[in-house]
Amino acid sequence: MKLTSKIFNSHPKTDGDFFLGIKNILGFKPKDIEIYKKAFLHRSVNKKDPEGNPMNYERLEFLGDSMLGTIISKHLYNEVPEGDEGYLTKMRSKVVSRKHLNELGKDLNLLRFVESRIPKSHFGENIHGNVFEALVGAIYLDRGYTYCEKFINERVIEPYVDIEQLEGKVISYKSLVIEWCQKQKKSFNYHVYEDTGNDELKHFAVKLTIGDRIMAKARATSKKKAEEKASKRAYFALQNKIENQ
Amino acid sequence: MKLTSKIFNSHPKTDGDFFLGIKNILGFKPKDIEIYKKAFLHRSVNKKDPEGNPMNYERLEFLGDSMLGTIISKHLYNEVPEGDEGYLTKMRSKVVSRKHLNELGKDLNLLRFVESRIPKSHFGENIHGNVFEALVGAIYLDRGYTYCEKFINERVIEPYVDIEQLEGKVISYKSLVIEWCQKQKKSFNYHVYEDTGNDELKHFAVKLTIGDRIMAKARATSKKKAEEKASKRAYFALQNKIENQ
Repeated sequence: MKLTSKIFNSHPKTDGDFFLGIKNILGFKPKDIEIYKKAFLHRSVNKKDPEGNPMNYERLEFLGDSMLGTIISKHLYNEVPEGDEGYLTKMRSKVVSRKHLNELGKDLNLLRFVESRIPKSHFGENIHGNVFEALVGAIYLDRGYTYCEKFINERVIEPYVDIEQLEGKVISYKSLVIEWCQKQKKSFNYHVYEDTGNDELKHFAVKLTIGDRIMAKARATSKKKAEEKASKRAYFALQNKIENQ
Repeated sequence: MKLTSKIFNSHPKTDGDFFLGIKNILGFKPKDIEIYKKAFLHRSVNKKDPEGNPMNYERLEFLGDSMLGTIISKHLYNEVPEGDEGYLTKMRSKVVSRKHLNELGKDLNLLRFVESRIPKSHFGENIHGNVFEALVGAIYLDRGYTYCEKFINERVIEPYVDIEQLEGKVISYKSLVIEWCQKQKKSFNYHVYEDTGNDELKHFAVKLTIGDRIMAKARATSKKKAEEKASKRAYFALQNKIENQ
């Protein structure tokens, strides 16, 4: 059947385009571009190397996952001298959580490089984080530790690792609100929609309804942030309500 | 009570001795010896840094554990191109198993450096592996990735990582020899001693006696490897003997 053998490839058409795309993301030149191609090769393509070994991003993902953990560990070790082993372990697992890595891969739009026989719409969320890890593995093999650390600093640590925020994420207002609704047997609904307005960055707006009442509205650069903001507002509104009852 | 405040410290008496001891194990010079001191500081000593943060080996252990995993991952990635992600994960966990790391720490006699308020005889087995990991963390911080990789290559990968043996394809010759002795009701003895000679790296020699006969001698960078080498020699000597009977 023709359809099943089709490769769903938004991989830039020429090697030159792929090289430039990767170089843009890395902030430095790849040496061996073939390693990076492997980092975006889905197992469905069923490619083999000249020795007959399967070629896909999964082995690189294994390697990248490990290196990512190490560099985050070193960062946390240096940044939080008062944190013990348990604290460091907990913080690292927050930074390298599946959810977080998926966000990262999505922000870099890595899916555009993925070569696969499965339509991309059929992939789950994890494809984003998986190829991000594979990319880290590719950098490690291609350019060594120092470049790998530089990449992780620029792409993960600087934009995403805010230790105070990570510590503060312990309390999610959204989960507090949901818990309250379930206890009170109230329905709730988070209605999220794009609302970029005049901003350069994409923005999201959210409307939180509890029962038949709009409890809070909020706006932020990510869905999650917007939901959290609205939840916080609703949470305090509900507390006031309870105290005044 | 005087006893409880005593520090059980076989830590070499002078800084110079400690420096030399560490240098011998590393195979290169430490830059900041204070980091290595921390790698052997047990929490029972209850030491604090000038900012009041607890000082002990546990944070370095966290860091070393991660780096060790990464370097083993890279080695396995390169050595076993046919192994998929699941295989690599399984093999890595065999190499960095608690049992394995404890053996490593024991072979290097790291316990002699440990500073603690608990008598060393009260520690469990895991102290050996824990301070080994802390030492890896200290090297990473002090001398960076390249030295850390060199150390792990020399101290872990070369003497301990035999992929066929890890896969279970090659059985342990030592266990074959012991089994034979037990069947034949012969006594056996592995006499292991340090025999560094002119080598920079510490070496171990082993003399395997079966009954009253010296069956084999061998020399290697770890006790286990030396025993395995001697056992292999004895095993083949015994096979010839049996065939010629």
